[in-house]
Amino acid sequence: MKTMYWKDNELHLLDQTKLPDEVVYMQCKTYMDVIDAIKTMKVRGAPAIGVAAAFGMALAELAGEKMEKAADEIKSARPTAVNLFWAVDRVLQAKETGSGSALDEALKMYDEDVETNRAIGKNGAAVIDDGDTVLTHCNAGALACVDYGTALGVIRAARDEGKKINVICDETRPLGQGARLSVFEMQQEKIPVKLIVDSAAGHMMQKGMVQKIVIGADRVAKGGVANKIGSLMVALAAKRFGVPFYVAAPKSTFDEENSIYDVKIEERDPDEVLHFGKCRIAPEGTEVENPAFDIVPSDLIAGIITEEGILEPF
Amino acid sequence: MKTMYWKDNELHLLDQTKLPDEVVYMQCKTYMDVIDAIKTMKVRGAPAIGVAAAFGMALAELAGEKMEKAADEIKSARPTAVNLFWAVDRVLQAKETGSGSALDEALKMYDEDVETNRAIGKNGAAVIDDGDTVLTHCNAGALACVDYGTALGVIRAARDEGKKINVICDETRPLGQGARLSVFEMQQEKIPVKLIVDSAAGHMMQKGMVQKIVIGADRVAKGGVANKIGSLMVALAAKRFGVPFYVAAPKSTFDEENSIYDVKIEERDPDEVLHFGKCRIAPEGTEVENPAFDIVPSDLIAGIITEEGILEPF
Repeated sequence: MKTMYWKDNELHLLDQTKLPDEVVYMQCKTYMDVIDAIKTMKVRGAPAIGVAAAFGMALAELAGEKMEKAADEIKSARPTAVNLFWAVDRVLQAKETGSGSALDEALKMYDEDVETNRAIGKNGAAVIDDGDTVLTHCNAGALACVDYGTALGVIRAARDEGKKINVICDETRPLGQGARLSVFEMQQEKIPVKLIVDSAAGHMMQKGMVQKIVIGADRVAKGGVANKIGSLMVALAAKRFGVPFYVAAPKSTFDEENSIYDVKIEERDPDEVLHFGKCRIAPEGTEVENPAFDIVPSDLIAGIITEEGILEPF
Repeated sequence: MKTMYWKDNELHLLDQTKLPDEVVYMQCKTYMDVIDAIKTMKVRGAPAIGVAAAFGMALAELAGEKMEKAADEIKSARPTAVNLFWAVDRVLQAKETGSGSALDEALKMYDEDVETNRAIGKNGAAVIDDGDTVLTHCNAGALACVDYGTALGVIRAARDEGKKINVICDETRPLGQGARLSVFEMQQEKIPVKLIVDSAAGHMMQKGMVQKIVIGADRVAKGGVANKIGSLMVALAAKRFGVPFYVAAPKSTFDEENSIYDVKIEERDPDEVLHFGKCRIAPEGTEVENPAFDIVPSDLIAGIITEEGILEPF
C-alpha cells in the first residue's frame, strides 16, 4: 500500500483523508490536481509532499506548461514544510543544468526517499533500547513519505533489529493523523500500539510509561524544529520528566538559512477544529484558532536523526 | 439553566452529555439514579458532583435506606474528586450530630455553592487584568457547580468589574467539556471566546496570546492539584512561557491529609477516546489508555483561588 506511484503518466495518490476506513487512490492528471491534493491533505507529511510536488512538476512538463509558473503555484500549496520548496527547486535545477527531465528527477526522488528513510531508521534504532515504549505524535510513517517512514522508520528498524518495542500514539487533533494513520501503520506491522488523547502524553511520561519520543519534522531550522501542532507541548513534558525527545527527518527538511521563528505557521480552516470527521463538536458559529504547526526549541531536542547520522539541533 | 434543582422530592439534573445541542433534564428518584448519573457524567465537575451526592443521600434517607451503605455506594461512583467524599461525609456528620436531615444539609450545600463561587470569583478577579486573554481547560464553570462556576466564575467576576476579557477554551478531549460546555457558557455570557485543540495551547502561549490561565480542580492535596487530563501539559507550557497559572477551587476540594501522588486517577472507558460523539476516530479494536485526570505539581501553580483568598499550593 504505497503512499503514491507513477503510472501511465499520472500520479496515483492514496487519499489519506479516507484512512483508515477506506483505501482509495485518486489520479492526478495535471499539476493543479497535485496542488489541490496537497492543500486538502489527501497527501500529507513533509517528505510525501515533496515527492508529490516533484511529480506535479513532471505533469506540468508533460503538459507543456511554463515551468517557473507551475513551480510558483505548487510552492504556494502549503507554506510550512520545507521539503515542498526543496523538491520543486531541485526539479528546476535539474532542468536548468540539463541533467534530466522533471519526470527523471521525480522518479529519482521517489527511489531516494525509501533509501533515505532506511538510513534514518538504522541511525535512529541505535538510540532505542529493547523494551522501550516509544511515544510519537502525528504520522511520520510510511504514509508521510513514499514508504517506510522517518519516526516510524526508526521504530520499524529497532523492531527489525530484534528489540521489543511498544508504541504510544497520541491522536493528533484536529485531523487525527495519530489515531487514523500511525495507529493503522503500527497495527499493520503488528507492533503493539496504544492510543491516547493528546492531553494524556504528559501524564504517561509522569508515570514513567514512556522511555523515548521520536517525531518527524516539517522544517529543521535555526533555533528549532517546526512540526505538527502539539509537538511543543509533548517536548515540554519530555524535558520535565527526562524522556529523550528525538526528531527524525531527512536533510531535505533542513533550512539552514532561516530562523525557525521566521517560518510561516500555516493556519487552516476552522471547520477542522469544529468537527471530528462528520461530527460537530462545539456550538455553531464558534470562533476558532487552527494553527497547524508549532515550534520545538532546540534546547528540548536530544538529537535530529538523519540519513547522515544523529545531528545536534542548531 | 441550573445544573440541578430539587423539586417534588426528586433531584433534577441537566444532562451534560447532551450539551450544547440539547438542554434536557433527567429526574433522579433514588440514590442509585444519582450514582448512575455521576458515573456516566450526566452531572460532572467536582463541586456539582459533591452537591449531587448530597442530594443522593437525601433520596436515600427519604426512601428509608441504610445511610452508611448508601454513603459507601455513592462514594464509589468516581474516585478522584474529593468533593464527593466531603459532601457525603458532611451529610453523615449532620445526621450524627442531629443538626439536620440529609435533605436539610443538601439544600444548605446547594445555596452555599453559589455564595462560595462568588467569593472565589471576587478573589480571583484581582489577578485578572483589563485586556487579558485567559485560557481555561475543561469546564470549571456554572455547569461544574450548582451555578456561577469557579474558574469561569473568576472570568465572570473580572468582566463584571468592567475588565475587558477574552477567553480561549481548549476543547478537552476525550469528552470535549471545553468545546461543548465552556465555550457554550462564555457565548451565553457574551464573553468573547475562541476554541482551540488541546495541542495548540502551548503555541498560543509561545506567541504571547495568553496572559493568564485559570483552571478548576478535582483535588488540591500535598504536592499539587489533580484536574482534567491535559492540565499538566498546559501548566508546563505556562511555566515555560511565563504565563501565571491559577487554580480556582473551593476549600471543599482540599485534601490536606494525602499526597496528590497517592490519589487514584480514574481510568475511563476506552470508547471515550475511540469516539467523538458518534464518530469513530481510530481503527476498530485499537487499544487505549484513558486516564481522566492528571497531576499539576505545586511548583507550576501561581496560586489557588479559594473563597478564603488566594492560597499557596502546599
